[in-house]
Amino acid sequence: MALLVTNIGELTTNVERDGDATGTVRDAAILVEGTRIAWVGERADAPAGDIPTVDAAGRAVLPGFVDSHTHLVFGGDRADEFEARMTGVPYAAGGIRRTVAATRAASDEELRARLSRLVAELRAQGTTTVEIKTGYGLTVHDETRLARLAAEVTDEVTFLGAHVVPAEYADRREDYLDLVTGPMLDAVRPHARWVDVFCERGAFTADESRRILAAGAAHGLRPRVHGNQLGPGEGVRLAVASGAASVDHCTFLDDDDVAALAGSDTVATLLPGVEFSTRQPYPDARRLLDAGVTVALASDCNPGSSFTSSMPLMVALAVREMGMTPAEAVWAATAGGARALRRTDIGRIAPGARADLVLLDAPTRVHLAYRPGVPLVAQAWKDGAALL
Amino acid sequence: MALLVTNIGELTTNVERDGDATGTVRDAAILVEGTRIAWVGERADAPAGDIPTVDAAGRAVLPGFVDSHTHLVFGGDRADEFEARMTGVPYAAGGIRRTVAATRAASDEELRARLSRLVAELRAQGTTTVEIKTGYGLTVHDETRLARLAAEVTDEVTFLGAHVVPAEYADRREDYLDLVTGPMLDAVRPHARWVDVFCERGAFTADESRRILAAGAAHGLRPRVHGNQLGPGEGVRLAVASGAASVDHCTFLDDDDVAALAGSDTVATLLPGVEFSTRQPYPDARRLLDAGVTVALASDCNPGSSFTSSMPLMVALAVREMGMTPAEAVWAATAGGARALRRTDIGRIAPGARADLVLLDAPTRVHLAYRPGVPLVAQAWKDGAALL
Repeated sequence: MALLVTNIGELTTNVERDGDATGTVRDAAILVEGTRIAWVGERADAPAGDIPTVDAAGRAVLPGFVDSHTHLVFGGDRADEFEARMTGVPYAAGGIRRTVAATRAASDEELRARLSRLVAELRAQGTTTVEIKTGYGLTVHDETRLARLAAEVTDEVTFLGAHVVPAEYADRREDYLDLVTGPMLDAVRPHARWVDVFCERGAFTADESRRILAAGAAHGLRPRVHGNQLGPGEGVRLAVASGAASVDHCTFLDDDDVAALAGSDTVATLLPGVEFSTRQPYPDARRLLDAGVTVALASDCNPGSSFTSSMPLMVALAVREMGMTPAEAVWAATAGGARALRRTDIGRIAPGARADLVLLDAPTRVHLAYRPGVPLVAQAWKDGAALL
Repeated sequence: MALLVTNIGELTTNVERDGDATGTVRDAAILVEGTRIAWVGERADAPAGDIPTVDAAGRAVLPGFVDSHTHLVFGGDRADEFEARMTGVPYAAGGIRRTVAATRAASDEELRARLSRLVAELRAQGTTTVEIKTGYGLTVHDETRLARLAAEVTDEVTFLGAHVVPAEYADRREDYLDLVTGPMLDAVRPHARWVDVFCERGAFTADESRRILAAGAAHGLRPRVHGNQLGPGEGVRLAVASGAASVDHCTFLDDDDVAALAGSDTVATLLPGVEFSTRQPYPDARRLLDAGVTVALASDCNPGSSFTSSMPLMVALAVREMGMTPAEAVWAATAGGARALRRTDIGRIAPGARADLVLLDAPTRVHLAYRPGVPLVAQAWKDGAALL
């Protein structure tokens, strides 16, 4: 099944040309064959023939958003905690345990129904690839259940048994580490691609984090890290030393952290929805970009610290609050996310890549930041199939 | 034609009860007859009979948003100016003249097409009443044209010939004032309900503003004011002294301004989309509320300083950045907007009021702030008719 998308006013390919990382083509067209992109170029050169055609009417097309950091499988919500925080109660990672209790109490059907609604919601906003973490089960049974449910909707499942130490292990921390690196890992492994750890004061130490990532790696899971969210710490350096694909949050960085990232292929994934919803300071994307660090943007969609699924809002916040240009922010929300997942088949529009596309109801990608909060996704395609 | 909306988990009526300005009812129902609300109460007490019924499934219902400040009739956009501003170029009111040039050059059909798209966009986000200003024509012919086009989509049309002095009158300021208060006012008058003036350094002085509002009032137009946006000034005190329904922006206020507002029935309309898109400081809503000032939220949708039509984002920004609780922000975006337009038939859900309703895809109104950027409007009704 072929599809020609033509009359594209501004096409963001993310295939670098002439020093432009966004590889922008004006008055462009794309030929899709099956699930893949077959041809990309200027409209005047587009293949002719009797091909089903979408007229973009001069509007902008970009790669589907790659949301490389979410926690979409959970029970309950924490609207009350959000409301209290907005009147001055500070954010604390301990709130995670509330969602753990609600998630354990939820049936598979309840979790699946919530997950389906969230996936539909993010697809309607142009996200074509989503990573989903476990981490609200924290028992062998529940972590496996969350990984299995996540695997029903994405290939990018991350084992986050090391989200926090659950309440029942508060006095038996070592036992929980044995569980996470032993039976829990064994059980979750068949459903997951990644292993992640929340390396932060109040969660896991650097030594504990190293042990968890090493155990995951020994079982074929590739490492990623939550780090430097709530204060300075060893998360970034641990991630780089471990060859992690990404270290996520990166709010509190010293010069050594930035240098370590710049000299690595570990992506710094920034999650501005968290800062929006917790009133924490925003990470300094400009400093990272200027140092040569690869930056990704993701939503961190979760009920505690960032209950948004909106990648367009992440772009707008990155521009408003974090010193990114619209072009850099769009790159980070697409190609950056792909890098953070070590994927080359998504996040760019080039022959052979997956046909994951977003058509905006706007002439340029700048409008994602210029028109904050406005639903601008007119159409999206995943593997060549229209989502809307 | 009757309609019963039932199984409403949280109903925001804005009919004060027991000190709760939002007049919240749990497990509620609403009966609509024709274009008006006929009955509101607890579900258990709802009228029975063979009435077409919408099951809200436990979700939240609130009055339709009242966006009491927009500039929706214009040509062109200013995405390039936005992009430059995000790299450090400061906002200046002079950019308005670019939109004036593009608007004058646009045909009625072009302006109407853009306006229709924006109205559809804001309705999809739950706005059921919108005020629209002229101010990008600044000739008798063009201001009349804009007012006529605006009147095709709303009853709340505001004459803003005093937006800025157009370039061709730069050396003939008095002549422009004569035009605005004379032939232009005469021509626009049949299409408008309000007269507005941008009382700010770089736009119009307090004396000029007084003259413009007085001329409008003499022709039956009721006053509203743009004031104290870019720096301290006389806008707020002028608005109060003129009996203006609203003074809009209110970023730079001294204690006398706040006291004047608190002792008046002039609403302070805050426009956080402007601060988001210009990186100006946000107005201090908390200070105003604590002083007893009536606060409204509006989008200021316009191509220069705030190209968003999203009232849900205004609620989220008011909570994140301006010290409002979710309940206060939702009240300000509904009842507050109604007060700013001196309307009692909208902004509340009570027998006799217009059946302008929003059904959220969420259990409470808090989710408008808790889930920023997410399209949460599941359905909206205007005058009893479904919009989605």
